[in-house]
Amino acid sequence: MSYLYDERVDGALPDVDKQRVLNDLRSAIPDLKVLHEPEALRPFECDGLSAYRSTPMLVVLPDTIEQVAGVLRFASQHGVPIVTRGAGTGLSGGAMPLEKGILLVMSRFNRILSIDPDAGIARVQPGVRNLAISEAAAAYGLYYAPDPSSQIACSIGGNVAENAGGVHCLKYGLTLHNILQVTILTVDGEQLVLGSEAFDSPGFDMVALFTGSEGLLGVITEVTVRLLSKPQCAKVLLASFDSVEKAGSTVARIIGAGIIPAGLEMMDNLSIRAAEDFIQAGYPVDAQAMLLCELDGAELDVAEDVARVEQMLRESGAVEVRVAQNEAERQRFWAGRKNAFPAVGRISPDYYCMDGTIPRRALPKVLTRIAELSNTYGLRVANVFHAGDGNLHPLILFDANTPGEMDRAEQIGAKILELCVEVGGTITGEHGVGREKINQMCAQFNSEELQFFHRLKAAFDPHTLLNPGKNVPTLNRCAEFGSMHIHAGQLPHPELERF
Amino acid sequence: MSYLYDERVDGALPDVDKQRVLNDLRSAIPDLKVLHEPEALRPFECDGLSAYRSTPMLVVLPDTIEQVAGVLRFASQHGVPIVTRGAGTGLSGGAMPLEKGILLVMSRFNRILSIDPDAGIARVQPGVRNLAISEAAAAYGLYYAPDPSSQIACSIGGNVAENAGGVHCLKYGLTLHNILQVTILTVDGEQLVLGSEAFDSPGFDMVALFTGSEGLLGVITEVTVRLLSKPQCAKVLLASFDSVEKAGSTVARIIGAGIIPAGLEMMDNLSIRAAEDFIQAGYPVDAQAMLLCELDGAELDVAEDVARVEQMLRESGAVEVRVAQNEAERQRFWAGRKNAFPAVGRISPDYYCMDGTIPRRALPKVLTRIAELSNTYGLRVANVFHAGDGNLHPLILFDANTPGEMDRAEQIGAKILELCVEVGGTITGEHGVGREKINQMCAQFNSEELQFFHRLKAAFDPHTLLNPGKNVPTLNRCAEFGSMHIHAGQLPHPELERF
Repeated sequence: MSYLYDERVDGALPDVDKQRVLNDLRSAIPDLKVLHEPEALRPFECDGLSAYRSTPMLVVLPDTIEQVAGVLRFASQHGVPIVTRGAGTGLSGGAMPLEKGILLVMSRFNRILSIDPDAGIARVQPGVRNLAISEAAAAYGLYYAPDPSSQIACSIGGNVAENAGGVHCLKYGLTLHNILQVTILTVDGEQLVLGSEAFDSPGFDMVALFTGSEGLLGVITEVTVRLLSKPQCAKVLLASFDSVEKAGSTVARIIGAGIIPAGLEMMDNLSIRAAEDFIQAGYPVDAQAMLLCELDGAELDVAEDVARVEQMLRESGAVEVRVAQNEAERQRFWAGRKNAFPAVGRISPDYYCMDGTIPRRALPKVLTRIAELSNTYGLRVANVFHAGDGNLHPLILFDANTPGEMDRAEQIGAKILELCVEVGGTITGEHGVGREKINQMCAQFNSEELQFFHRLKAAFDPHTLLNPGKNVPTLNRCAEFGSMHIHAGQLPHPELERF
Repeated sequence: MSYLYDERVDGALPDVDKQRVLNDLRSAIPDLKVLHEPEALRPFECDGLSAYRSTPMLVVLPDTIEQVAGVLRFASQHGVPIVTRGAGTGLSGGAMPLEKGILLVMSRFNRILSIDPDAGIARVQPGVRNLAISEAAAAYGLYYAPDPSSQIACSIGGNVAENAGGVHCLKYGLTLHNILQVTILTVDGEQLVLGSEAFDSPGFDMVALFTGSEGLLGVITEVTVRLLSKPQCAKVLLASFDSVEKAGSTVARIIGAGIIPAGLEMMDNLSIRAAEDFIQAGYPVDAQAMLLCELDGAELDVAEDVARVEQMLRESGAVEVRVAQNEAERQRFWAGRKNAFPAVGRISPDYYCMDGTIPRRALPKVLTRIAELSNTYGLRVANVFHAGDGNLHPLILFDANTPGEMDRAEQIGAKILELCVEVGGTITGEHGVGREKINQMCAQFNSEELQFFHRLKAAFDPHTLLNPGKNVPTLNRCAEFGSMHIHAGQLPHPELERF
């Protein structure tokens, strides 16, 4: 029955007869849309991390939950790996296909099933775009809070799989904090309902376990999200500084004063200039660093907080502080920030976007070290980040056509992530581990800890058919990468070496 | 090596030689404090659910993490079950001991290890009392938000194990939403650090999985909690209604208007009168129902919200609305609510405190059904609950000395929980499953879902030594209870029948 995938290790799956898989799949699920010609497969080669590419063996585009269950049953019976893909906007290669696996595309599940304004919840299919939820809820004065920069395009299923954040997650939380229930299909095609509409659910917290699991535990078929009332008003302040360190320590000061901004973002000179060139947001191009601080809530409350933050910014040495005078200016201030990545793309042939998190108190130290690394490796680094929650997005600028630059970019990127771990942070903030950071997981966790990840994975997917080679590294991989503790020359628990 | 516990099922462990376990434990960990005399064991017979009692075989009171690890290694080597106990205030029997098991008491780990006011976090040992954290943080204008009614006595380790809530969790979240990192010892005595100080952690969400796992996955040795700035001001409104339904629908209206009160509590006539008799809080003893609504935040904001809520209460038919005029009156309003359980204890020889959660929109329906059940079974039911998040606490009044009354109380309790599930809610809000609700878990989950709980349990504790018989029922138990789907007369996956 099996197509003999069982001896595989990461990225080295044994050969498989594609034509036979295609024929068998077609007879198992006759009405399923399947793509198999090279030109039809090409658009699915990568997700938002375009540096990592691979052509899938087959792409399936199911229309019904029964078809998805059928694909999973087929894959389980025959031992064919499955990679699930939403809108393909992920930035860590979580939806990168496998040459010898099926890419399961959930984009046709794009219906909002119900909105209950009294309960403040919406039930949606996984392919619904993040922004489409807020658009549909707007009629009731409600919205869905998490807002990744890709919110126009990214879909809620992918948001759950990656536990997506956004500029407003400092105040409103990550995806996990804004969902109540997730319906999934297991690798055997069985439906499980995780969580409930109630505030808390008995038993183990399966919703939290599933959120951010990057497609390793099952396939999402429905999500119940929380909707919030739109804040009465929102104001944004823009402050310029003559040093990155001053801006960094101001962030800690604002949070330390008990103010929770809806967003608190920082950009350095290189990214300010790139964004201003691209968007004409009215940014201070001579500033060494800039903070954007949004405050939202009831009108009187916001007015009071704006005054307090403005005073703190001035006391912390801000060269200039501006409050957006109207909604158009507020939107313009944010447009510069939200387009900072493509803006940097205009000033460099290539860039490598990092994502790490550090304790806020480590901000000045880490920024200084990044500047030193930039000098050492001879590559420019633009810093754009969610300062409020310590989530860094250093963009490493390079030219892939200049020999050695891509290697140096990867080296400096790895150093930055290790630096994040060293100061007590993590190797990812909101982009996930995916394919990209699989090696850095070996620096983040020791072998004891990774074994528990493997055991949890095995509880859901004992034959590791779901998104193999992503999110959780094998112990062998970590041994090769060099960060894993090896006891007496042996990997602990070799029977767990299955991913 | 093993004391032959491996054939056990819930509550029916095979005999064990207590003296031999005691001698072996003493030689394995000579400096460990061990209680074994009947009179020394008696205080540990039950936790806050005193209807469920059992004398532990041995009680150990370790002083060091090394001793805890030693106890776990000993238990793993010899197959002795372990029940971990914090302050023993839990209300679902999660810390009820086993006659043939060791009770591991963590109360000596009561040190606050560090407070970092800039980062807004505190590192504490598991035996630190909930309120002690806020007391220590007060010097920095900070506090720990979750506030179970037992906060004077309950400890943070137990709060994490049960994912404790409190009257303020509507706005500030449950324990899970207020912790960042948990250090545990596995059943083998190995240390694992779950989560990080950063906003989000890569890999599976082990902190969430562990929170609320009721001692089934490991032993907590350290918790890093988030501290919040004390709100500038807090105001509480008290509204009386001439019907429970009117009060119930007002709750949905307030939340629907986008106001998130710091607390929104409801009491019915029976509990109002009991509380007033006990505390003299100034409650309206003739009201059929009463709402307490607390609003906190910046001063101007609170003033505006108080005015809006007051208007909504009047429009919804409140007979009387009062705003606490000063901090003393505010504290008095809350004292009545926080002491409602002991107050009811004064008007009935015994009472059975239930804990279930329902969608807010089902409040009026469920309250009507509870009144009908009360009539049918001939027992009074006092309703006291966290109305804002739909968390009910019906108190069933009975006299254990009147034959049949305790049985009837248990029957009505089970009916209420099944009603919660029927309307889309859950069998527990914040008290946990523990020993008490192990049967109701069979109504909440189907066998597919329970199997995944068993697999997660097995990932951490393959020999089910940690708190067996709590939180997750065996499939056999559910088959006996009658709510489990049996396929072709067979339990699915009998090999998982290990709890």
